[in-house]
Amino acid sequence: MSLNNNFSKMLEDKVKSIETLLREYLPAQEGYQKIIMEAMEYSLMAGGKRLRPMMMREVYSLFGGTGKVIEPFMAAIEMIHTYSLVHDDLPAMDNDEYRRGRKTTHVVYGEDMGILAGDALLNFAFETAFRAFELCPEESLKIGNALKVLGHKSGIYGMIGGQVVDVKETGKAVEKDVLDTIYEWKTSALIEASMMVGAILAGATKEEVETVEKVASNIGIAFQIQDDILDVSSTEEVLGKPIHSDEKNNKTTYVTLFGIEKASKIVEEMSKEAIECLHKLPGTNAYLEDLILSLIHREK
Amino acid sequence: MSLNNNFSKMLEDKVKSIETLLREYLPAQEGYQKIIMEAMEYSLMAGGKRLRPMMMREVYSLFGGTGKVIEPFMAAIEMIHTYSLVHDDLPAMDNDEYRRGRKTTHVVYGEDMGILAGDALLNFAFETAFRAFELCPEESLKIGNALKVLGHKSGIYGMIGGQVVDVKETGKAVEKDVLDTIYEWKTSALIEASMMVGAILAGATKEEVETVEKVASNIGIAFQIQDDILDVSSTEEVLGKPIHSDEKNNKTTYVTLFGIEKASKIVEEMSKEAIECLHKLPGTNAYLEDLILSLIHREK
Repeated sequence: MSLNNNFSKMLEDKVKSIETLLREYLPAQEGYQKIIMEAMEYSLMAGGKRLRPMMMREVYSLFGGTGKVIEPFMAAIEMIHTYSLVHDDLPAMDNDEYRRGRKTTHVVYGEDMGILAGDALLNFAFETAFRAFELCPEESLKIGNALKVLGHKSGIYGMIGGQVVDVKETGKAVEKDVLDTIYEWKTSALIEASMMVGAILAGATKEEVETVEKVASNIGIAFQIQDDILDVSSTEEVLGKPIHSDEKNNKTTYVTLFGIEKASKIVEEMSKEAIECLHKLPGTNAYLEDLILSLIHREK
Repeated sequence: MSLNNNFSKMLEDKVKSIETLLREYLPAQEGYQKIIMEAMEYSLMAGGKRLRPMMMREVYSLFGGTGKVIEPFMAAIEMIHTYSLVHDDLPAMDNDEYRRGRKTTHVVYGEDMGILAGDALLNFAFETAFRAFELCPEESLKIGNALKVLGHKSGIYGMIGGQVVDVKETGKAVEKDVLDTIYEWKTSALIEASMMVGAILAGATKEEVETVEKVASNIGIAFQIQDDILDVSSTEEVLGKPIHSDEKNNKTTYVTLFGIEKASKIVEEMSKEAIECLHKLPGTNAYLEDLILSLIHREK
């Protein structure tokens, strides 16, 4: 799918507005512990698609949400995503020295501060989300429900669970159901949290939130399979990172299991299903649909 | 102070009941990610004084609290304390291979799982605290206030902040105000969170919660200074760990700054002030007073 200029311009504006919001929610850099605030900012403001807070806000609008209660949650989900990258890059994990063309947090601040910066971002993510109680005390029950989803999808039944299985299975041949679990937890879980929190805070019904969860699950998995495909079909120039990395790391992927053609077909089917599910919901958000399609069919 | 048998018996029973509660709140050990649940249990059930959940419950009773809403928070605070120990023991931090006579979590499960088990415990601590919303939905506002305190005292303005300053200043001569900040954040902050959450959930007023915070701050600092004193005045046999470790690590302590005699006097004054403050509150809890005195005047 080729995207028109209008979408690109909107995307750019929305990324900018999210980055302004993130800066507002970051702690002031002061006190004896100033170095940790610096490390938090260094990792959080390193760029990236800002996909999760963006999806959260778009789903919130889809359900008619217009308040400020969504903002602390938007910052929180990006902090959680970022802490997971900081810890994932540590020497005892993936041992990555660069991310998005910049030195990783532990390389700049030391391994001890890398661990503490990750911890700080995770803790601060929840602290940030708790600010919703002050912003909208009358919505405490909804905020409580949103927190439950955020916590569950970030933890051992979501993102951390995915990291655990991924670490455990590294270098081993993996069956499809294990691979699906890794994709679901490692990639879909935080997208599910983003979209579900948007729906919950806008007052969606239980059934609507379940539909949103299904849409997000499909998006996450299709996104991840597209990643597998690009790793064998793209070029280092377009992708901005080495290709054939899965092969080098002996990784089981949808491409090694099914081949490129079938993997591409699965991506098509899953994104079609996601959009169909989305249409079942009341309200429309054309930008959200464009965003979903652009992610799944991206070329880098 | 010598403690009577009655107190010792009550202490033992209360520790047992907290350990039963912790087991109830731990996740079932199942699924592809089972190893992380094992590592969480290994670290959480490794013993310890269970001081934080105990103080939380005692303050909750002091203010007349009788409900179950306190229980998820009791489990949560112990999970937060435990994750901080798991990460503190990592090779890039203190590199400790043993804690309480058992191998540390990363030694048993590997460094990658040590990092993830810490992350999992921190995330699960908040997930656990969020269960209070289901238990007592009508208390959502109070639960929100308790969460704010829990998050704040555990993060960069509390425990993590203390870790950061401690790591940064290791091996350097430290001035009294920096030392006080480290003690306040590293030791007092979680004790403050414990006691304040107990007060908030029992419906204490803002002023009462502030008094509780002051009491807890004194307890934490006095506890830490007593630690400094025992490191030079006790024996390895009584303490169960090597003495003179602060001297070996070139650590500034209250003993190096003021000498044993003055340090002991400060402990006396701070604990006196804590008990006096406690008496200003409505209600009494003789066990809580005994507990505070036993901690500050402990011989190991």
